[in-house]
Amino acid sequence: MPDIAAVKAALSDQRIETPSWGYGNSGTRFKVFARAGVPRTAQEKLDDAAKVHEFTGIAPKVALHIPWDTVDDYAALGAYAKERGLELGAINSNTFQDDDYRLGSVCHPDPKVRRKAVEHLLTCVDIMDATGSKDLKLWFADGTNYPGQDDIVARQDRLAESLATVYERLGDDQRLLLEYKLFEPAFYTTDVPDWGTSYLQCVKLGDKAQVVVDTGHHAPGTNIEFIVALLLRERKLGGFDFNSRFYADDDLMVGSADPFQLFRILYEVSRNGGFDPATNVAFMLDQCHNIEAKIPAVIRSVMNVQEATAKALLVDREALSAAQAAGDVLAANAVVMDAYNTDVRPLLAEWREERGLAPDPVAGYAACGWQERIVAERVGGEQAGWGA
Amino acid sequence: MPDIAAVKAALSDQRIETPSWGYGNSGTRFKVFARAGVPRTAQEKLDDAAKVHEFTGIAPKVALHIPWDTVDDYAALGAYAKERGLELGAINSNTFQDDDYRLGSVCHPDPKVRRKAVEHLLTCVDIMDATGSKDLKLWFADGTNYPGQDDIVARQDRLAESLATVYERLGDDQRLLLEYKLFEPAFYTTDVPDWGTSYLQCVKLGDKAQVVVDTGHHAPGTNIEFIVALLLRERKLGGFDFNSRFYADDDLMVGSADPFQLFRILYEVSRNGGFDPATNVAFMLDQCHNIEAKIPAVIRSVMNVQEATAKALLVDREALSAAQAAGDVLAANAVVMDAYNTDVRPLLAEWREERGLAPDPVAGYAACGWQERIVAERVGGEQAGWGA
Amino acid sequence: MPDIAAVKAALSDQRIETPSWGYGNSGTRFKVFARAGVPRTAQEKLDDAAKVHEFTGIAPKVALHIPWDTVDDYAALGAYAKERGLELGAINSNTFQDDDYRLGSVCHPDPKVRRKAVEHLLTCVDIMDATGSKDLKLWFADGTNYPGQDDIVARQDRLAESLATVYERLGDDQRLLLEYKLFEPAFYTTDVPDWGTSYLQCVKLGDKAQVVVDTGHHAPGTNIEFIVALLLRERKLGGFDFNSRFYADDDLMVGSADPFQLFRILYEVSRNGGFDPATNVAFMLDQCHNIEAKIPAVIRSVMNVQEATAKALLVDREALSAAQAAGDVLAANAVVMDAYNTDVRPLLAEWREERGLAPDPVAGYAACGWQERIVAERVGGEQAGWGA
Amino acid sequence: MPDIAAVKAALSDQRIETPSWGYGNSGTRFKVFARAGVPRTAQEKLDDAAKVHEFTGIAPKVALHIPWDTVDDYAALGAYAKERGLELGAINSNTFQDDDYRLGSVCHPDPKVRRKAVEHLLTCVDIMDATGSKDLKLWFADGTNYPGQDDIVARQDRLAESLATVYERLGDDQRLLLEYKLFEPAFYTTDVPDWGTSYLQCVKLGDKAQVVVDTGHHAPGTNIEFIVALLLRERKLGGFDFNSRFYADDDLMVGSADPFQLFRILYEVSRNGGFDPATNVAFMLDQCHNIEAKIPAVIRSVMNVQEATAKALLVDREALSAAQAAGDVLAANAVVMDAYNTDVRPLLAEWREERGLAPDPVAGYAACGWQERIVAERVGGEQAGWGA
Repeated sequence: MPDIAAVKAALSDQRIETPSWGYGNSGTRFKVFARAGVPRTAQEKLDDAAKVHEFTGIAPKVALHIPWDTVDDYAALGAYAKERGLELGAINSNTFQDDDYRLGSVCHPDPKVRRKAVEHLLTCVDIMDATGSKDLKLWFADGTNYPGQDDIVARQDRLAESLATVYERLGDDQRLLLEYKLFEPAFYTTDVPDWGTSYLQCVKLGDKAQVVVDTGHHAPGTNIEFIVALLLRERKLGGFDFNSRFYADDDLMVGSADPFQLFRILYEVSRNGGFDPATNVAFMLDQCHNIEAKIPAVIRSVMNVQEATAKALLVDREALSAAQAAGDVLAANAVVMDAYNTDVRPLLAEWREERGLAPDPVAGYAACGWQERIVAERVGGEQAGWGA
Repeated sequence: MPDIAAVKAALSDQRIETPSWGYGNSGTRFKVFARAGVPRTAQEKLDDAAKVHEFTGIAPKVALHIPWDTVDDYAALGAYAKERGLELGAINSNTFQDDDYRLGSVCHPDPKVRRKAVEHLLTCVDIMDATGSKDLKLWFADGTNYPGQDDIVARQDRLAESLATVYERLGDDQRLLLEYKLFEPAFYTTDVPDWGTSYLQCVKLGDKAQVVVDTGHHAPGTNIEFIVALLLRERKLGGFDFNSRFYADDDLMVGSADPFQLFRILYEVSRNGGFDPATNVAFMLDQCHNIEAKIPAVIRSVMNVQEATAKALLVDREALSAAQAAGDVLAANAVVMDAYNTDVRPLLAEWREERGLAPDPVAGYAACGWQERIVAERVGGEQAGWGA
Repeated sequence: MPDIAAVKAALSDQRIETPSWGYGNSGTRFKVFARAGVPRTAQEKLDDAAKVHEFTGIAPKVALHIPWDTVDDYAALGAYAKERGLELGAINSNTFQDDDYRLGSVCHPDPKVRRKAVEHLLTCVDIMDATGSKDLKLWFADGTNYPGQDDIVARQDRLAESLATVYERLGDDQRLLLEYKLFEPAFYTTDVPDWGTSYLQCVKLGDKAQVVVDTGHHAPGTNIEFIVALLLRERKLGGFDFNSRFYADDDLMVGSADPFQLFRILYEVSRNGGFDPATNVAFMLDQCHNIEAKIPAVIRSVMNVQEATAKALLVDREALSAAQAAGDVLAANAVVMDAYNTDVRPLLAEWREERGLAPDPVAGYAACGWQERIVAERVGGEQAGWGA
Repeated sequence: MPDIAAVKAALSDQRIETPSWGYGNSGTRFKVFARAGVPRTAQEKLDDAAKVHEFTGIAPKVALHIPWDTVDDYAALGAYAKERGLELGAINSNTFQDDDYRLGSVCHPDPKVRRKAVEHLLTCVDIMDATGSKDLKLWFADGTNYPGQDDIVARQDRLAESLATVYERLGDDQRLLLEYKLFEPAFYTTDVPDWGTSYLQCVKLGDKAQVVVDTGHHAPGTNIEFIVALLLRERKLGGFDFNSRFYADDDLMVGSADPFQLFRILYEVSRNGGFDPATNVAFMLDQCHNIEAKIPAVIRSVMNVQEATAKALLVDREALSAAQAAGDVLAANAVVMDAYNTDVRPLLAEWREERGLAPDPVAGYAACGWQERIVAERVGGEQAGWGA
């Protein structure tokens, strides 16, 4: 049986990165519902993220999205974060919300548009230099909607060339993380639709290029933990964008649609050294809180990852290996299910109290008065949101 | 073999209804790309629709969406349409773009919100009275995102009660058409997720309630033509919202993703009397032209339905029945494929020339100068679009 | 909070029916792996089922499959069961393993084949009279593989006619349970592909016809608990065929692929009175233990249903209703997740000990010597299996 | 516009390989329907394949499956083929129908089982040496059914090691073709589930290892032509296993479920040099004719590939490039659709008559008397079939 002290130690090493845009308004193509108290500036997003970290203890990093979080002085923003116990995480690029990008960005048939997109990516690296961020996270909306609209291989060539330019610009300790997505907003081809395409492009770029697994970006039936295990085997897993879904890229709170899947993914992370800080896997959230309160939803999401991690760490690896070696299907499965069926909430409450945290982060946040304060104070101005 | 004259006669009876919103801007949750020349008023949308009808000859009806097409004087709008050879078609309600509808509309837990939604639907019937529209088309974004968020059966009860109120208000020759959709914007439960739910609710309402099949609203693998055949058997097929998709509700041009599926659907319509005007099936488009030119895309879509219809009418029903009765799988399939593999474009060009239409509607429109004119004239004002 | 005594009482009322074929060999189209100790007769299957009931305490019913379980004297078989503390459950028909059924059975174009199939179903009702079984469970492999192969509506008409003949034959306290399945073995149309089709046919038959939900028979993304809730609302849920899947109709142990889904399904059962014996919902397993030990797999499956039931019963319904009424999405979801995250194994061990059962059925069975005995004794003869 | 002479020349270069098992009985897990006249020996399968080639003119190669086609003297079998105008194609291995393979073959936890599987693969290479076959086609049923059953990465390591042993054994002009499949018969993990995994393993093996794309082995929504284009860009496309499906791995006749998809795939082949014999792409069928006549089904399948190829060759590449460069979405799509909508059957009839073939292969075969002959003569003995 796993040693509880070791489990707690591993939990103490875990860091979950929350996205600045998770604190703002988001929605579907049908409607974005506004919510009182939503931040209006990058600084206010950091204020909210600080609350999440205050009550969970494991969310000190905040990912930025450019241009949504554009500021004049990134060093000042970094200092603002540091004062609140935070650090700035991955820089996320945006090459999909400009009219020029109607037919793509880094894969666009027109070299002028590609150049514009690459320039934006290079600017993001400049920002990384200023903020000390180590990761450039790239998700491209590039693709086509109709057969024949553009040439698949030509677009792949353009993608490779654009990425190579950006890769060259990276500093020694900076990474390029390439996310894949099956579809949306492109509805026929997507230029990086699956892990294989991202992996192939990253291998050609070099060691500083790695794959990002967004848990909502797969075809129905895809075994995500298999991909995670494979990428860890190849040392090509750069990180996660966690969220969950019942249908497509629903961007619900991680662990809310299929908590057992989240557990299986994190078990593969555990099994293959992915919790070792040296492996450098970024555990990021990427979610849309369309109808629910935002800060509590982020807190719940961090807790869901933590609970699933605790269960994954509780898997009795020795017993499992023995059952696997014996070919005992039911016994091996039972070892895994025993860990999953364990209620880890008491353990985590204990772990929190040992570090002076409220045992229940949700209740702690609800009682702290922050929500009431931001609703009262954040009046006027433009609320942050997708595309704001 | 089917008689060509009979096929042409059937084609001459066909009417395809285009949606007013198909002429405006639309997009994904990531971006709406604006396009020069897009209409700014309901009248300008009708002007564009008139061009589609001018070049296709089978698209005289235009569906309205309330409040996107709200005007002060619906009778005047009807007259405006009539002057252009058009008539106003289905009235589409909108109970998803008001802040009150965050947790639903006709299924909302709060009776005040339900009442507001029902009032809107009753207003739509008032508009139908004014425009002479016969169909109230209902699509509800209602549903939940998280397990436990609301009670499935209670929502179903509220749905039934709300619909009953609206049904009572219908005139003798008016219909309530209830659309179903698997998911989006709701990501856990949707209150009318499948044909079974829509059928069940419609049966309880009565004969004036019928099901709408939107071809993009199904789970992967669903056999849509089976549903169409079944609903025709039960006299519960009210109409179609045509579009096509590779993934989810992509809303691409009908027939662009799977033209064989469109043909199979229209074959079932043909086989089961659905082209008979007395059956009263509404053939509507419901698409989003996110990246392509809008009027030409609507023209192409109308042509795609017409081509698939022509192929469906060309199926040799006698030969097919004989092969089916003989249990000859390959021969029966070959009869269907023979019709599908026929190039019906020459036949349709001939059919058009017989009625004084340009043989190629796409080329005809391109040459007529309308596009250049609207780009030049429609400057200033607010372009129409989803939610505009 | 739910009262623990009430939860235990509800658990004591639960009955899970195991399928005779779950004790025999099964496999995929690629290979059926034989296993030592597998039963060779209907009696030996009952012997194994008795062990499952001995260690779980809630599995006294055994479903039969005709002709796999054909015996000369069904009354004697019933007595054999009774001596072992068992009763015979649903009679499952088989109209898919005779060469005549290549193109269907009750929907076949040839009336002679349909008549043969209906005769078989009537024979099954005769067997029900002999065994005292109350449920005739019908799953039809009927469908087509290629477009045009047969006429969708004509097949639906034949289905209705065939079912009506069988329905007429039912006794007052007998039911016809009609199962639906998306696909397999038919690969283009399936004649009862979804709950809507089964519901529609059952409504026309009458109150003694009800729908069976097999948890593996849906398109990807289908919300099964929604269907369950709807059918309970309409009093048309006849029962479940429990199993689980990651892909298609994988027929894995129930709860092994998505335990949270199983919990959500059973919560809807609980919420809508489905555990009330008066509602008469049959909780049946229908699984294939292709690579794992069979009796332990059935025991594990029964336990999985029981654990998910216990969690469903633990949902704090008052707190949930309050959160739903308040429109508090996160609070409502948290109530449900609190129950799901509870480790109910100690409660169930206690419940077992209170009735003199081993606290851990898996360990109890492993220690009892039965497996060793059947491996030693069941030598020679033909092992039972699909189609045996 | 493409030159018709060039199109005909390209069609004349095309070779489609039919599988020996396509002439035998096959079925689902529920039932294998026997059919009169089915071959009983490898030689009789070649006799049937010769008829397919006689009437289509482009199917001279026949893939073998070991051990289903095991003979004492492979050189004699090769001579038998040659006498009939055929040559022996890919050797397909079978490591899934022996009881030892219950938990896998080349990935099995037990090294003895892995060794046995590898020995079989080496035997297949011996057979290739004897028959002159150039391709070893590997599909592994390996995987797991339950979480925890075995270790994902350990299995991947075993796979790599097993493949390396086989790769070493290949002659200079022999290839190892590694097929992937999403699921079935494994229902939780599959060891080679997607093109990415196959590609990754093949890259590590070397240039003689390439990926096989079976068109039925993908998750719903997967864009297969994208994968084909990518693999051709990387020179890693070894060949196709053609078939079609509406649901999962239905193994229907290629082009019967989605003829537009087949056209799009073959367009990418054409666009990326895949029809150039130097590219060495093997165009193989892999289908199950469960309910339809087998030889006519294979003829129809070959024709379907040929028709889709002709359409793909008819795409006006210049017009397409111009529209793509101009960003004209609708015009580019129209170029592709123009080719697809062309009825190529007259062109192909002409092409056939130019080489002395019957213009309609289906009618030609039906009239030739072969079917009646084999039904009369092939009486007694054991019919060939999956696992026979």
